[in-house]
Amino acid sequence: MSTAFAHEARTTSMNRDDLDLNEYEPRMNRPVRIKIADFQREERPKHVIVSDQFDEETLEEMAGTADMIRMLAKTRQGHSFLLNLLPHKRAMLYFTQPSTRTFLSFMAACQILGITCNEVRDPSTSSEEKGESRFDSIRTFSSYFDVIIMRSVLSRFAECCAYLMNDLEDFNHRSIPIVNAGSGADEHPTQALLDIYTLQRTFKFESTIDSRRTMSYESLRRNPQYAGLTRGLSGKVYGFCGDIGRGRTVRSLANLLSLYRDVTMVFVSPDHPKLSLKPDLEQKLLNRNVRLHQVDSFEEQIDGQPVIEMLDALYMTRIQREHDDPNDAGAYQGIDFRKYCLTTEMVARMKDYAAILHPFPRDKNFGEIPPEIDNDHRAMYFRQARNGMWIRAAVLASLFGVDRQISRYFQSEYTERHDYNEDVL
Amino acid sequence: MSTAFAHEARTTSMNRDDLDLNEYEPRMNRPVRIKIADFQREERPKHVIVSDQFDEETLEEMAGTADMIRMLAKTRQGHSFLLNLLPHKRAMLYFTQPSTRTFLSFMAACQILGITCNEVRDPSTSSEEKGESRFDSIRTFSSYFDVIIMRSVLSRFAECCAYLMNDLEDFNHRSIPIVNAGSGADEHPTQALLDIYTLQRTFKFESTIDSRRTMSYESLRRNPQYAGLTRGLSGKVYGFCGDIGRGRTVRSLANLLSLYRDVTMVFVSPDHPKLSLKPDLEQKLLNRNVRLHQVDSFEEQIDGQPVIEMLDALYMTRIQREHDDPNDAGAYQGIDFRKYCLTTEMVARMKDYAAILHPFPRDKNFGEIPPEIDNDHRAMYFRQARNGMWIRAAVLASLFGVDRQISRYFQSEYTERHDYNEDVL
Amino acid sequence: MSTAFAHEARTTSMNRDDLDLNEYEPRMNRPVRIKIADFQREERPKHVIVSDQFDEETLEEMAGTADMIRMLAKTRQGHSFLLNLLPHKRAMLYFTQPSTRTFLSFMAACQILGITCNEVRDPSTSSEEKGESRFDSIRTFSSYFDVIIMRSVLSRFAECCAYLMNDLEDFNHRSIPIVNAGSGADEHPTQALLDIYTLQRTFKFESTIDSRRTMSYESLRRNPQYAGLTRGLSGKVYGFCGDIGRGRTVRSLANLLSLYRDVTMVFVSPDHPKLSLKPDLEQKLLNRNVRLHQVDSFEEQIDGQPVIEMLDALYMTRIQREHDDPNDAGAYQGIDFRKYCLTTEMVARMKDYAAILHPFPRDKNFGEIPPEIDNDHRAMYFRQARNGMWIRAAVLASLFGVDRQISRYFQSEYTERHDYNEDVL
Repeated sequence: MSTAFAHEARTTSMNRDDLDLNEYEPRMNRPVRIKIADFQREERPKHVIVSDQFDEETLEEMAGTADMIRMLAKTRQGHSFLLNLLPHKRAMLYFTQPSTRTFLSFMAACQILGITCNEVRDPSTSSEEKGESRFDSIRTFSSYFDVIIMRSVLSRFAECCAYLMNDLEDFNHRSIPIVNAGSGADEHPTQALLDIYTLQRTFKFESTIDSRRTMSYESLRRNPQYAGLTRGLSGKVYGFCGDIGRGRTVRSLANLLSLYRDVTMVFVSPDHPKLSLKPDLEQKLLNRNVRLHQVDSFEEQIDGQPVIEMLDALYMTRIQREHDDPNDAGAYQGIDFRKYCLTTEMVARMKDYAAILHPFPRDKNFGEIPPEIDNDHRAMYFRQARNGMWIRAAVLASLFGVDRQISRYFQSEYTERHDYNEDVL
Repeated sequence: MSTAFAHEARTTSMNRDDLDLNEYEPRMNRPVRIKIADFQREERPKHVIVSDQFDEETLEEMAGTADMIRMLAKTRQGHSFLLNLLPHKRAMLYFTQPSTRTFLSFMAACQILGITCNEVRDPSTSSEEKGESRFDSIRTFSSYFDVIIMRSVLSRFAECCAYLMNDLEDFNHRSIPIVNAGSGADEHPTQALLDIYTLQRTFKFESTIDSRRTMSYESLRRNPQYAGLTRGLSGKVYGFCGDIGRGRTVRSLANLLSLYRDVTMVFVSPDHPKLSLKPDLEQKLLNRNVRLHQVDSFEEQIDGQPVIEMLDALYMTRIQREHDDPNDAGAYQGIDFRKYCLTTEMVARMKDYAAILHPFPRDKNFGEIPPEIDNDHRAMYFRQARNGMWIRAAVLASLFGVDRQISRYFQSEYTERHDYNEDVL
Repeated sequence: MSTAFAHEARTTSMNRDDLDLNEYEPRMNRPVRIKIADFQREERPKHVIVSDQFDEETLEEMAGTADMIRMLAKTRQGHSFLLNLLPHKRAMLYFTQPSTRTFLSFMAACQILGITCNEVRDPSTSSEEKGESRFDSIRTFSSYFDVIIMRSVLSRFAECCAYLMNDLEDFNHRSIPIVNAGSGADEHPTQALLDIYTLQRTFKFESTIDSRRTMSYESLRRNPQYAGLTRGLSGKVYGFCGDIGRGRTVRSLANLLSLYRDVTMVFVSPDHPKLSLKPDLEQKLLNRNVRLHQVDSFEEQIDGQPVIEMLDALYMTRIQREHDDPNDAGAYQGIDFRKYCLTTEMVARMKDYAAILHPFPRDKNFGEIPPEIDNDHRAMYFRQARNGMWIRAAVLASLFGVDRQISRYFQSEYTERHDYNEDVL
């Protein structure tokens, strides 16, 4: 591990202070099951660092909070209640790895709850140029702000910052929550939350905008083809297509989906070790009793049915060419990448209620999802982006302990109006 | 048109996704009179795209709203009312063409109404580097925010975004207003609004800080020289000086002024096709019965009077050297550009109540308005900047439909205090 | 002086508009005692430009306001009171010299009082590229915003802006306060305020987190070694170590400390004219009856006691290598810079209640304060950063005249709870 870090530091041209991360290595090297205790306080998240810290119950609670926030935000009065929850909190968005989408989504999430946002996006702040260590910067941020939402090219930097905060707390110093908004090739836990949340809404079969417009759950089930259809994430077939090997969002989502019962996953990717399912994730999923298939085309058959026709949800990804290794150029030339692009014909063959997701941005040059598909009712990827804002607001509400307050207010205001129209969005 | 776009895309080194604009070409190519219906809803602006969408009545209404906002903002209580109008709205300021002044003015305008601001200013966001199309970016912004205020080097990009939003609305997707804060060499509608607003305030002859300090409207009219003086924008002589040909602010302002009756316009510019009045604008103004003069000096006489002495308002501009074509260098060397710079002597010869405007920034090297003139009572250009903030707040109030609420509140609080002192600013 | 400016303009590659500063030279050249009247209004700060404008009484008042703000911010109700003090005010943070720490500290300070923040950080804004003068930019900012907090590489630019605002006021134009957040090598008045504030809190001997945890003032005084210990900044021994010659924070702090009675200062620096105490500051301190020592090591003895053991407070600084002159390289090679770095052994020999300060950032490569010292109870430098936020909030409260309102509210809410626990932070 020490060597891995040293290597990463070298290849990403980090200077020697990043090697200070080594101080935290013994803690980083513990099994994840042990580590996650450090990110929780009384069974609630104290920091948000890895997707593994969420269990099924927490996922359902977070989705519930997100649902309440989005419904409250539809009325002037509810919005006003939300804005007055955390006006005294100031967030630092420390994004040294560029990311417009995640950045804006967190900004909006903060603003919904009245949190004031501040940002540092330049990878080399002026202080660091004067020789300041990264941990001095973080501790300085913690002097002025009440939460640090951070994205870094360096794997596990967010994890180390969480340990720093825990140490400060032990010494009775000021300490604040750390939220990992993507670190290195490793983890992007809130992206996994928003993907799960989008699936949760789809498979509730309640809102007409989150699933098949023209057909209710009852009418779907009257269709013999969908007779066994159930609500919820369990018992579903999930497809993942594209850059499986290098996609941290695929990794985190598959990880969380494996918490549910009776799950099938089909990974559709070129048969190349860099692009297909990594052995460690494969093993983890198998250990959790996921039924797992790896194919190199949507047309391959499983139990006599083409993959494209059996999916309940499809998670598309772009091929991350920016991570290509020149040594693989030869092997990649032999791959027919068009097989990992959707067409309107393929979408028409998908289940009527199936959801198409994509972590975005999609690549207009590669065309994994051509714009013609955007108006198909199965296309969930723009709603997915907006879901990201709501679930991140739920994460922040939970970190600052106002989720129960939201729940109480919601119950008191909305219980009688059971038929509240969710579709206005 | 297709060719024009392809050319623009090439010369501004745009990549092929900008050619997606072509999809909107049939709509862009319609006559402006037809198009503007797409930017309105129930005779109110739904998007703000071109200055042509404002008629005289709307201009007067906007000015009225701006006046009320600025007066409310003078008291703690009024300010508090304004701040609570739109605290649940989040704006995206998407400024890929740099502009400090317009940017800050819109920021301040949002803040006055309690709108939270977010910004993307880097022309190449990280998502676009990953192959995202511009329209995916815009639609993503529309997922998180409630209005997009945008400035782009690409002509008509804002117009296309308005069409995108209209299409989304037709498909029952989330759709938000688009505000054009300057696109290409084409249009800058809110600049035109602020120029008009400054003239409206000047020619109300009410506030002592917006026009002649030492003389009331009545005393002005007792002066035989100004006997025919009337209130309002009609019946006035407007001068435009400097870079007429390349100034989009001149274009938009002249366009709006031509809505008023009995208007004279004098264009003072070097006699060179790149710098003088463009034939298409000339034709449009003539069609609207503007009395139009083109001269190459303030000393030229019209009806026996030097231009400088006959103007009711003078709109100065800087020569946009950054748009110079090397081929014109020879022709430009023969021009005496000093003639397009004001001096204190010239200002002293202007009508006592005349207003000097400038869209700013002025060029200290060229010196079209030397700082000595700043303290002359005719200098309106700094007040003009502040007017921009108020009129933009009025535009946002109108887009979000709170202008009538402002009006009702204002009436109830301020009607008895008719003599409210406006001069505190 | 004229020459000095011309030189600075040349060496910092400023263009000719910076020479406009010359217009203000007669005012800049007045003795500071005369000048400061221009920055005050009715004995209160109207602008914050130089540390000399604060006298002992103002320093105590500011600290009192900062104390009240930090205590109010601990409760939801108090925080809400603060947020509603200045929600109608908009600040411009104009930081053309990069500074993450000061910038964020001011942002947070504004946000505590409900002030909305806007920023311009790019040294060359788009308007300036179009030929706009700096003073036009400043005046434009003053059109949209209610205070300008500025940091510039150009010495005294903030001072000139204050004169510009005063002139505008004289002409009955809009005028707003200017806050100097660091200008050139010259002044950084709010840094001096936060240093003083940290010392004020330390030498109050009240809060257990601002001074010796395990020992009260009474028990300290029972220790024969500390028998003469008194509360307050008077009668103390202050050490300054490192880059004395080029540190503007040292300059401003020493200046303010000299306002107190019976003060001893020990400057520990290499014996080189660029790095040691400048003659002008030495003279000023002597004129104010400071007992002054210059040594080149903590081990040097004064009255038979090593410096390190006699200090009540120690102000460490980093060596500003970025300002090194290549001509001095030879001389610097002969210096043993390690003598200007603290070690845990040295800290252990310091007085038990002594405070270690540092303006930050510290230099991890130079190591003037190694991280091992961070958990020593004498280490005040992280609390100092947070103090900066509170004292800046106090400065803003004073500029906008709400400090008395804070005081009244605090008295009414907190007087009975004399034992309010400050230590929660």
